[in-house]
Amino acid sequence: MAGNIYGDIFKVTTFGESHGPAIGCIVDGVPPGLELSESDIQYDLDRRKPGQSKITTQRQEADAVEILSGVFEGKTTGCSLALLIRNKDHRSKDYSNIKDIFRPGHADYTFLKKYGLRDYRGGGRSSGRETAARVAAGAVAKKILQVHGINIIAYTKSVGDVEAKKIDYSVIEQNIVRAPDLKAADKMIEVIEAARKNTDSIGGVVEAVIHKCPPGLGDPVFGKLNAKLSYGLMSIGTIRGIEFGLGFDATKMHGSEHNDKFYMDGDRVRTMSNNASGMLGGISNGEDIILRVAVKPPSSIAQTQQTVSIDGKDTTCEVKGRHDPCICPRVVPVVESMIALTVVDCLMLHKAIQLPDTDD
Amino acid sequence: MAGNIYGDIFKVTTFGESHGPAIGCIVDGVPPGLELSESDIQYDLDRRKPGQSKITTQRQEADAVEILSGVFEGKTTGCSLALLIRNKDHRSKDYSNIKDIFRPGHADYTFLKKYGLRDYRGGGRSSGRETAARVAAGAVAKKILQVHGINIIAYTKSVGDVEAKKIDYSVIEQNIVRAPDLKAADKMIEVIEAARKNTDSIGGVVEAVIHKCPPGLGDPVFGKLNAKLSYGLMSIGTIRGIEFGLGFDATKMHGSEHNDKFYMDGDRVRTMSNNASGMLGGISNGEDIILRVAVKPPSSIAQTQQTVSIDGKDTTCEVKGRHDPCICPRVVPVVESMIALTVVDCLMLHKAIQLPDTDD
Amino acid sequence: MAGNIYGDIFKVTTFGESHGPAIGCIVDGVPPGLELSESDIQYDLDRRKPGQSKITTQRQEADAVEILSGVFEGKTTGCSLALLIRNKDHRSKDYSNIKDIFRPGHADYTFLKKYGLRDYRGGGRSSGRETAARVAAGAVAKKILQVHGINIIAYTKSVGDVEAKKIDYSVIEQNIVRAPDLKAADKMIEVIEAARKNTDSIGGVVEAVIHKCPPGLGDPVFGKLNAKLSYGLMSIGTIRGIEFGLGFDATKMHGSEHNDKFYMDGDRVRTMSNNASGMLGGISNGEDIILRVAVKPPSSIAQTQQTVSIDGKDTTCEVKGRHDPCICPRVVPVVESMIALTVVDCLMLHKAIQLPDTDD
Amino acid sequence: MAGNIYGDIFKVTTFGESHGPAIGCIVDGVPPGLELSESDIQYDLDRRKPGQSKITTQRQEADAVEILSGVFEGKTTGCSLALLIRNKDHRSKDYSNIKDIFRPGHADYTFLKKYGLRDYRGGGRSSGRETAARVAAGAVAKKILQVHGINIIAYTKSVGDVEAKKIDYSVIEQNIVRAPDLKAADKMIEVIEAARKNTDSIGGVVEAVIHKCPPGLGDPVFGKLNAKLSYGLMSIGTIRGIEFGLGFDATKMHGSEHNDKFYMDGDRVRTMSNNASGMLGGISNGEDIILRVAVKPPSSIAQTQQTVSIDGKDTTCEVKGRHDPCICPRVVPVVESMIALTVVDCLMLHKAIQLPDTDD
Repeated sequence: MAGNIYGDIFKVTTFGESHGPAIGCIVDGVPPGLELSESDIQYDLDRRKPGQSKITTQRQEADAVEILSGVFEGKTTGCSLALLIRNKDHRSKDYSNIKDIFRPGHADYTFLKKYGLRDYRGGGRSSGRETAARVAAGAVAKKILQVHGINIIAYTKSVGDVEAKKIDYSVIEQNIVRAPDLKAADKMIEVIEAARKNTDSIGGVVEAVIHKCPPGLGDPVFGKLNAKLSYGLMSIGTIRGIEFGLGFDATKMHGSEHNDKFYMDGDRVRTMSNNASGMLGGISNGEDIILRVAVKPPSSIAQTQQTVSIDGKDTTCEVKGRHDPCICPRVVPVVESMIALTVVDCLMLHKAIQLPDTDD
Repeated sequence: MAGNIYGDIFKVTTFGESHGPAIGCIVDGVPPGLELSESDIQYDLDRRKPGQSKITTQRQEADAVEILSGVFEGKTTGCSLALLIRNKDHRSKDYSNIKDIFRPGHADYTFLKKYGLRDYRGGGRSSGRETAARVAAGAVAKKILQVHGINIIAYTKSVGDVEAKKIDYSVIEQNIVRAPDLKAADKMIEVIEAARKNTDSIGGVVEAVIHKCPPGLGDPVFGKLNAKLSYGLMSIGTIRGIEFGLGFDATKMHGSEHNDKFYMDGDRVRTMSNNASGMLGGISNGEDIILRVAVKPPSSIAQTQQTVSIDGKDTTCEVKGRHDPCICPRVVPVVESMIALTVVDCLMLHKAIQLPDTDD
Repeated sequence: MAGNIYGDIFKVTTFGESHGPAIGCIVDGVPPGLELSESDIQYDLDRRKPGQSKITTQRQEADAVEILSGVFEGKTTGCSLALLIRNKDHRSKDYSNIKDIFRPGHADYTFLKKYGLRDYRGGGRSSGRETAARVAAGAVAKKILQVHGINIIAYTKSVGDVEAKKIDYSVIEQNIVRAPDLKAADKMIEVIEAARKNTDSIGGVVEAVIHKCPPGLGDPVFGKLNAKLSYGLMSIGTIRGIEFGLGFDATKMHGSEHNDKFYMDGDRVRTMSNNASGMLGGISNGEDIILRVAVKPPSSIAQTQQTVSIDGKDTTCEVKGRHDPCICPRVVPVVESMIALTVVDCLMLHKAIQLPDTDD
Repeated sequence: MAGNIYGDIFKVTTFGESHGPAIGCIVDGVPPGLELSESDIQYDLDRRKPGQSKITTQRQEADAVEILSGVFEGKTTGCSLALLIRNKDHRSKDYSNIKDIFRPGHADYTFLKKYGLRDYRGGGRSSGRETAARVAAGAVAKKILQVHGINIIAYTKSVGDVEAKKIDYSVIEQNIVRAPDLKAADKMIEVIEAARKNTDSIGGVVEAVIHKCPPGLGDPVFGKLNAKLSYGLMSIGTIRGIEFGLGFDATKMHGSEHNDKFYMDGDRVRTMSNNASGMLGGISNGEDIILRVAVKPPSSIAQTQQTVSIDGKDTTCEVKGRHDPCICPRVVPVVESMIALTVVDCLMLHKAIQLPDTDD
């Protein structure tokens, strides 16, 4: 409850600081009999890891994962799955100059107020580095979803003012910004590089789609699928907003435009439009679930910024070290992971409440 | 976990269908010694109740609350607080014509897919009527927050294209749309009435502010205050999006613009701007927390809409009954309640982890 | 978490004080499609209710249950099930004389220390009357277990020094002490009546058996089935001890005597003895689960007892009112209920973690 | 919920198999600012570790703990505390002969039935080795309790028929069986050595005392302190029963004997006797809390035992390897740990629900 545990049945508990010896997680509630090896997890970790391209931070971390428990002879046992990633390239000295000040946009000040002390080395626990543990757990969730035929895809929809004009999933992993439109990707990269040259950073939008989510996931009151997704996604440090379907545009519409009409597609109930983003009353209806998250510009910039010191004096700071000028490309796998963790949990809960004769 | 419980320490469990005998809730984790009477709760229930003005549904419900347990001699006992609201004006016959079809935009179809059966009377459990229980519990949470000096205000920021130009809290309860700008309120009411005349509905934006939230609430990883708020707010049936501070506008900004610079205000650390909406790294920093939710146009409209029947045939329906042409005015107290429930829970968790010598 | 909620998936939240207007509960996580009516629940409530025989308290409560939500057209909907029992015969005046003192053996003192105030009317929330809500929820759990073929039976094993010599389930409901041995029952009743004549009370042992619990329920570490059962059973106010199988007698045995040897019974793996009480490593093995709970003598006795007043003076008290001289007969359905709530929760969790191809 | 997480606020998640690479845990909800180093944890790990004396298993494990996160500059940060213990002396070959059979008294059969597969190396997750992670977390809980002045002591009360006649805490760590009576300890050791020579094992009773538990911990309904303690203690693999105060002996008593009379001790409310074991209505009253757990004889014995093979044939087995002839001496620190984890959680919850003006 102190906020390091995610999920109700598929429960992920994470640990680790940016510059401590290791980060990782334990997953409670893994179904037994799932084939799983380190390489299944490594693929997504590589998509998130620093130093992967010229537009990400140059910190070098292999982010190699070690399975410490929960897998035997290539299959999950149903018991705690423990995943460990050792930190390698943590140059704590980079942070000695920020030890006594609060970096604008970072959690330095709020950490100190909350806990009475803080690990100033690279943000400690509030570093984006903690998301590696989410991605490791998310990779396991994705494997479970695959068994159920559910597929999650995320991509960079826009960077600054540059927006993807088309959605071609096949090109997402072919460009370093992870856009679904190669032409837009080139422009996005230009915008990011310009920001970096200005010792600045830039925001963007990441969009995600859940394909083939079966109808019936989510619950009608507090446990709505969109509510749970919002919880998970907004817990990613850089996210400032989330919308489903038409989102804020829906606020200017009439019900007669916004309602998705039903029709029969063979023996399947479908909707003509998908303004509701695959959910009605918080429960999936079988259409694609589409959502967007607002990614703020990274707070770490090498410019001189006004701030205050921990002993209460006005001062300035420059956040040196190695930073991402735009975090969207690396947020993409984190978004997928939080969605996967959420959906797998809803799926397991849905199974739990079935009577034997209605078991699916 | 089946989604009728909200909160980690201050746990609210709700029940009740739109056309059943009653709705209500039990609150587990109420601090002892809080002065509490039915009238403390009734105020917010009255702000949410149907039939309160010409722009809301004309269903007549007093929504009178009865405290069944947890209060003794005018004070909370620390034990389960049970709140009961009897339904009065439930004309189930209004819904006999929709018994066999799926209303567009409603949860009829997803309920049936999830549970294998559904209570078709006014949406059953998925009716917006369930939010009365949230508001009842939220009123208790607000009283606790008052003891801590925390104050929550919500209002209708826009309806369709009409946006409030100024924010004057003192006029919010003086107009039936609950806008903070009387001039804009008049236009909003016009837009709503026009929609109703067209047997249509219209969306809007509700904005909320948390004043004097002490620094230190929320947790750095999954339990971020903004994440928990998003969970609670997105669980309100009509919400399609949420943003904090600059929200989606932040995605087009550079870090140098977006970062809030720190300065000393006497002995208090403040930020010059508040783009981060009172939170850094998911933990409150003492500035105002400002958020907006996208409220979709209500799905219940009396127009003929294409749909399908439960036996799988294309057909049409008209959703008769008594409906809200714009739900914003009644969502305002629900938004406040979900915020109050969330903040009180974070506050209680914050207390829980203090060692004796650092106890605040 | 403040202790009014039981279960992880099938979550029961209870409320109500001995002398308040009502008691009851909400169940979150009820499977949809279960046939359920008030009469299904009333049977067990009647077994627990006061005034049922000459050896129970003479307080008269019909304990008539009202279903407020969660059932539609005779079947559970999958949504919150709310159950309400109005208190009728609450003579608060009986308790005015104990308002200012602490009754020995009761929670009067600890309540006041914990909460700073207390509802002195009949123990308020700490009254055994709260178990009516457990029995109501337990009756629903039992119905679900029946669908899975699982059956729970409890009975009074001993009262004071009188122990049942044989176990005949068919006679349990034929005698007012709920013993499985009619001859022993007569002696038990004598012992109880003697205690009552002495304005005293007497303890006993209740034993319970879970028949046809399928193998695989419970988890290997903290979530052992015996651990969860202990939690639920020890939360019944009068219980002072619990043992499974041979219990404390096992502490004097050698492993060679205590180990249950396996053998094949057709194609089923069985054990020759059942010292482990149907569980190995906290997971059910398909044999009967047998447990015993130690029921203390009721604290309410009409004798003059030494005590202290709330203003810190030595004094005496006599606990007038209507009391049970031995609570075993009424604890029997409560024990069954806590077992049912626990097993149904384990069953639902077990379903949750199955992959599709291994779904049972 | 799959049973690898313990606690509501101070949440311990454990992982690890007997013969995997490592075991350990993550603690969520650690108060910030607590001085903590590996040596604080190592003391109790050394009391639990194998190979510590001639009457324990001869497996050699240093059980050296590494803190991976949550401590900075010697103090807890308030973030996830991750503790890692590498396994060293795991001779998996010892278990090749039991790969295809079910050991009597062990979880081999139930694991296979539950999960469809099992890690047969030394019991995998169901090995008593998992308790090292509990002890590591428990050592942290004990440090927090010390700050609150609460102290927990456990000891071996009896082994087979040999019972400690006196309780002298100062000698507990002076004898290898951890008895509070040196004369009895010698006899207990004889009984244990005799069992070992017979390739057999023997049970016993462990008793524990919580000193200076402040009044007010625990909750009146499901969350009774004794209920939570029972949950934690019964989740230790070898425990078959638990009793508080007079336990099963109370079942033969009258209320007039069993009730603890109150008296004033200066300005403190005390009880003349302590039959209720420091709790009334599930809430601590400030007196010592005394409990006993029944420890079964270890299941691993080198005798030939009848059993069945995983392919369903009657056969025999001898459980070779290195085993404990009596587990009481090593269970003592595990019992202390589960008590500490439970009490610290209740303490934190108690703080959580205080209003500011009543904050203690």
